[in-house]
Amino acid sequence: MARDYDVIIVGGGPAGLTAGIYAARARLRTLLVERGVIGGQIANAELVENFPGFPDGISGFELGQLMEKQAIKYGLEILAAGIVGIELDRHDKVVTTTEGVFQARALIIAGGSEHRKLGVPGEEEFLGKGVSYCATCDGAFFSDQAVAMVGGGDAAITEAHFLTRFASRVTVIHRRDQLRAGALLRERAAANPKIDFLWNSVVEAIIGDSEVNALQLRNVKTGVRSTLDVSGIFVSIGQHPNTEYLRGLLSLDENGQVITNDRMETQIPGIFAAGDIRHNSARQAITAAGDGATAAISAERYLSRFR
Amino acid sequence: MARDYDVIIVGGGPAGLTAGIYAARARLRTLLVERGVIGGQIANAELVENFPGFPDGISGFELGQLMEKQAIKYGLEILAAGIVGIELDRHDKVVTTTEGVFQARALIIAGGSEHRKLGVPGEEEFLGKGVSYCATCDGAFFSDQAVAMVGGGDAAITEAHFLTRFASRVTVIHRRDQLRAGALLRERAAANPKIDFLWNSVVEAIIGDSEVNALQLRNVKTGVRSTLDVSGIFVSIGQHPNTEYLRGLLSLDENGQVITNDRMETQIPGIFAAGDIRHNSARQAITAAGDGATAAISAERYLSRFR
Repeated sequence: MARDYDVIIVGGGPAGLTAGIYAARARLRTLLVERGVIGGQIANAELVENFPGFPDGISGFELGQLMEKQAIKYGLEILAAGIVGIELDRHDKVVTTTEGVFQARALIIAGGSEHRKLGVPGEEEFLGKGVSYCATCDGAFFSDQAVAMVGGGDAAITEAHFLTRFASRVTVIHRRDQLRAGALLRERAAANPKIDFLWNSVVEAIIGDSEVNALQLRNVKTGVRSTLDVSGIFVSIGQHPNTEYLRGLLSLDENGQVITNDRMETQIPGIFAAGDIRHNSARQAITAAGDGATAAISAERYLSRFR
Repeated sequence: MARDYDVIIVGGGPAGLTAGIYAARARLRTLLVERGVIGGQIANAELVENFPGFPDGISGFELGQLMEKQAIKYGLEILAAGIVGIELDRHDKVVTTTEGVFQARALIIAGGSEHRKLGVPGEEEFLGKGVSYCATCDGAFFSDQAVAMVGGGDAAITEAHFLTRFASRVTVIHRRDQLRAGALLRERAAANPKIDFLWNSVVEAIIGDSEVNALQLRNVKTGVRSTLDVSGIFVSIGQHPNTEYLRGLLSLDENGQVITNDRMETQIPGIFAAGDIRHNSARQAITAAGDGATAAISAERYLSRFR
């Protein structure tokens, strides 16, 4: 395996793989580094119904595999490794991984972000079987069913509203006695007849057989335990972008996401970002893929100055 | 057909169709208006190799059909009509089409762009009689004949390659002394024995009787005029966004493209833009699709304030 590349891509989800397809087709020597499963978060999705081109839906794992096959066909190299650190050496970006040091003139950061988890029994077991971290992706699966939304911020309340387009009832479970969400969102939620609230409450366990059918709750003020019958639980208690190794190198927003312009350029020439890791990302597989293509095109244009 | 919608989408390419998938899945009453072929420009592409998820490639026509099927499955309505004008009536966007007047609170502009023309004598006269802007559509008419391709970008060189399937010779006429096209395409063109180049040259007139039989050329460096015998001329010198009806309503850039932020919001609340029509678009099917999803998500959030 070489040490010098034209482009190094960090992350093997839809953003990174699409950047890989575009960069490799442009005959750039391109290395993609992914520490986990190829496909990223989408690999966990049992059925993706909203990636355009697949009218019958496709499993997220299969979609990731197809993108990987397509990128490798055009010459993308893929390394299974974690990122330890990134340093600048004049025009070069020096990437230290758990499997060695590599360098390139252009770097595309597409490491995605992780949904913060509740950390309760049943959460992993029922992932994709009633447990979801994305209302936009999975809301349509819960037509005329009762669901819960855990969280009290803008994202949670926006998604609770969205879920009322499908669900018969949306119970917002929040550990405090008022929402963090902005006033407008709070007022709308209070006025929405399909939304009700369980204050001062936390989920202690997610219960089901083959799929979720109830939540075990605890009131943090009274200590009283109760059960809530639901078919689905949506968790929106924050995102955790994988950007620790970028602190001090790039401008990050208050959530740790990378700030770019609409050409996916960061403030450092030759460093681009794409997908969920990016500030203002819509956090969808298709938007991440679009970002990845744009980042690769911008990287190719950047590199053409050195030829 | 209803007159009132939540969202009206102008344009049925990858941007508009993906916006349609997302809006319809969000249970928004959504109308897509397309005056021509569903799929937009991509419908002309014989083989799309860089849309992620299709490692063996897919015809652009088929890709458009798949996206249309997916959007209709979730409830998108599609109207075959042209846009006459758009007016604002408080929060409503009133869209006058050749098939009637419709209105919606949210509007997504995804009308793509048109092929730029040379503007030389003979160009209109011989349209369809040797002059073409679409190699995929018209290439087969030129079996064993000599043709010219005017342009030097990715699209021009991609189409020049395609034309060598049919033509005996393809002369690329370019006003500069090198191509703008990417490295892979340049290398392939240089290696293709059926492709030759006329550098620093422009077409001054298209000559023929009932059909094209020659081009009058001028070398822009030397001023020398010459004649090139060809049966066909393909023009690929850029795009002209379909935004005339938006002048005075929205901020457009110097090329007539719509200016948005990275949430696809224009400066008018409730009007969004997506795809090739957008300033800084990378003009790829996958980036247009990503834009469309982002625009629909932004539209849904905008509309939630009225519920």
